[in-house]
Amino acid sequence: MSAPGQDASPVLALAAELIRRRSVTPEDAGCQALIAARLQRVGFHCESLRFGAVDNLWATHGGTGPTLIFLGHTDVVPSGPEDAWQSPPFEPSLRDGRLYGRGAADMKGAVAAMVVALEQYVAAQPMHAGRIGLLLTSDEEGPTNLDGVRRVAELFRRRGERIDWCVVGEPSSRDRLGDLIRVGRRGSLSAAITVHGIQGHVAYPEKARNPIHAFAPALAELVAERWDEGDADFPPTSFQVSNIHAGTGATNVIPGVLTAQCNFRYGTASTAADLRARVEAILSRHGLRYELAWNLSGEPFLTPPGGRLREAVRAICRELCGADPEQSTGGGTSDGRFIAPLGAEVVELGPVNATIHQVDECVAVADLERLPALYTAICARLLGAPSLAAGRQGRD
Amino acid sequence: MSAPGQDASPVLALAAELIRRRSVTPEDAGCQALIAARLQRVGFHCESLRFGAVDNLWATHGGTGPTLIFLGHTDVVPSGPEDAWQSPPFEPSLRDGRLYGRGAADMKGAVAAMVVALEQYVAAQPMHAGRIGLLLTSDEEGPTNLDGVRRVAELFRRRGERIDWCVVGEPSSRDRLGDLIRVGRRGSLSAAITVHGIQGHVAYPEKARNPIHAFAPALAELVAERWDEGDADFPPTSFQVSNIHAGTGATNVIPGVLTAQCNFRYGTASTAADLRARVEAILSRHGLRYELAWNLSGEPFLTPPGGRLREAVRAICRELCGADPEQSTGGGTSDGRFIAPLGAEVVELGPVNATIHQVDECVAVADLERLPALYTAICARLLGAPSLAAGRQGRD
Repeated sequence: MSAPGQDASPVLALAAELIRRRSVTPEDAGCQALIAARLQRVGFHCESLRFGAVDNLWATHGGTGPTLIFLGHTDVVPSGPEDAWQSPPFEPSLRDGRLYGRGAADMKGAVAAMVVALEQYVAAQPMHAGRIGLLLTSDEEGPTNLDGVRRVAELFRRRGERIDWCVVGEPSSRDRLGDLIRVGRRGSLSAAITVHGIQGHVAYPEKARNPIHAFAPALAELVAERWDEGDADFPPTSFQVSNIHAGTGATNVIPGVLTAQCNFRYGTASTAADLRARVEAILSRHGLRYELAWNLSGEPFLTPPGGRLREAVRAICRELCGADPEQSTGGGTSDGRFIAPLGAEVVELGPVNATIHQVDECVAVADLERLPALYTAICARLLGAPSLAAGRQGRD
Repeated sequence: MSAPGQDASPVLALAAELIRRRSVTPEDAGCQALIAARLQRVGFHCESLRFGAVDNLWATHGGTGPTLIFLGHTDVVPSGPEDAWQSPPFEPSLRDGRLYGRGAADMKGAVAAMVVALEQYVAAQPMHAGRIGLLLTSDEEGPTNLDGVRRVAELFRRRGERIDWCVVGEPSSRDRLGDLIRVGRRGSLSAAITVHGIQGHVAYPEKARNPIHAFAPALAELVAERWDEGDADFPPTSFQVSNIHAGTGATNVIPGVLTAQCNFRYGTASTAADLRARVEAILSRHGLRYELAWNLSGEPFLTPPGGRLREAVRAICRELCGADPEQSTGGGTSDGRFIAPLGAEVVELGPVNATIHQVDECVAVADLERLPALYTAICARLLGAPSLAAGRQGRD
């Protein structure tokens, strides 16, 4: 076991420096200042956008024209008990060809690769076409994401900021680097349901109204419902009840209220308005006295086949990773949902996600060191450059 | 507002003395010692039976032969915040013809009436037939009742103690004294259900198994089930789910386990074994991975029409309270469930129950002062005496 030393590659050294910073959401802990200083040295214009407790960094290089941005986050999820880790979560550690530490895979490794790729690309192509950018936030892992990319996207919309293509460095790969890219994400629609009854004694149910009993047939119908069949790009809509609570703890008391929380993950075969209306119809049909509080945390987005970014990333995975990647819209949601509505194609490409949010989170050093080349190749394909050709020559 | 004074009737004075003792379950707080001292003075043999933290008093008068006992409890439920009461809950207070205080109605008023009735009865009939007794516990209101009348009944069974008739002083009356008597009680059968699933992320339901979804159709079937139609003595069996809990609190996590608690109140149209088997069949049919923990806290019991005690109490209510009482098996359970299996007829007759377990619990002083005459009349009917005749003379 050792920390990355003087001889570490630029991407490994930077990933290690970022892991050392305890940037648990919404803390950035100096990650963005470090990155801004490096990018300013190679000619980027850097703008710090602080909203509430959240740091956001917007760094651009080049003038007008087609804009390609890389999107990532400097915050990480909590480590949990540190003594459950083989090495301390905020001390980068090399073992068996892997870099260990909280954020190694999600996503300080990819952030380091983006920074190194941008440095290398503008050094090789100082007069590239269009504009290239990096957008980072310290509020991707939190529960609400109110002050992160959501707020930045609102600002971009007001400014008329042009964004054509957005590469998200979230850990998309499943078994080996580049085997899966995300070309969209499902929407996420949540509801908090409150069912009102009348509290009473279990021996006198005629004087009470049990909200568990009232809700039971509606719940059975909700979980049995087939919401849609999905479509070419998205699987069928999924509905899950995450929490249900009723009862005072006493076994002889009929509770007066029941609460439940549920969540839809849905594609383009349904709309949020449809899903809401159908839930409300089911609850109403069962005669419940209820309240519903809806929260639409992300609409679905999709970069369709044939888009320039999607095809460029596919080609690069084929050429540099050896196989056509699976093109998925699965998984949770991502900050790409805020950028897509600005009119950008969004594709996600990052390292293997097997250990994210777990103890002993890690990234293979070999994957980490190949990632900057993938990102510079994307720049080259979209904004013009010899770097991909160089990569090709090396393989001829 | 005033405390009962020197001129208070014997039953009012004793009820007040008992209310002053903070005998919240399982505390007796000296109530039984006070009562034992009084009954010993008039010739009762008193036996203190302490089990665990619970005091029980068994007082008898007379020799062998038919045995009539009065059954009650000296413990009370907690008062809740004392400042919610108009007068302190453990300071007896007279207002508007009512005695206020925790336990006034449930059931220190009736206990005082039983003691005064027994004193008066043995004074008038020192050589009465058979045997007369009083059984008190300080654990009727607790959640388990393990060390109260349940334990005493086990002792009685081992001793071969003879009990023919048992009058329970629980507050049976609905609107006016003696308008309702209880001639039996439903059984109470509870189950704790645990449904096992597999925890996961709501975005990846295919990797998880949601116990809320698994349980929903079984729950809908359980609450819709008609368990039986009841019979001449009991209403249909009632089933209530008192508690249901699943979920980590996080809205993006599918929980790994669901727990629920439910309770049957059942009469003689079903058996506990039947009900258990039917619940298990429903859960199994839905393919659940579940555990069930059953608790049978009381079998149903019934004193059938024509029984000497039941008919005596009816006649006394007609004669001293003015109308044939409703003969009910409704409501919760009572300590009578432990005495009935010893072969005793059990009937419950006590004051109006409108305020029990509430703030500002109270009993009408007029009702309290009529209650000893009802109880002595029962003694007279079953063991022979002139007291009922005396009552009749007064009304001629």
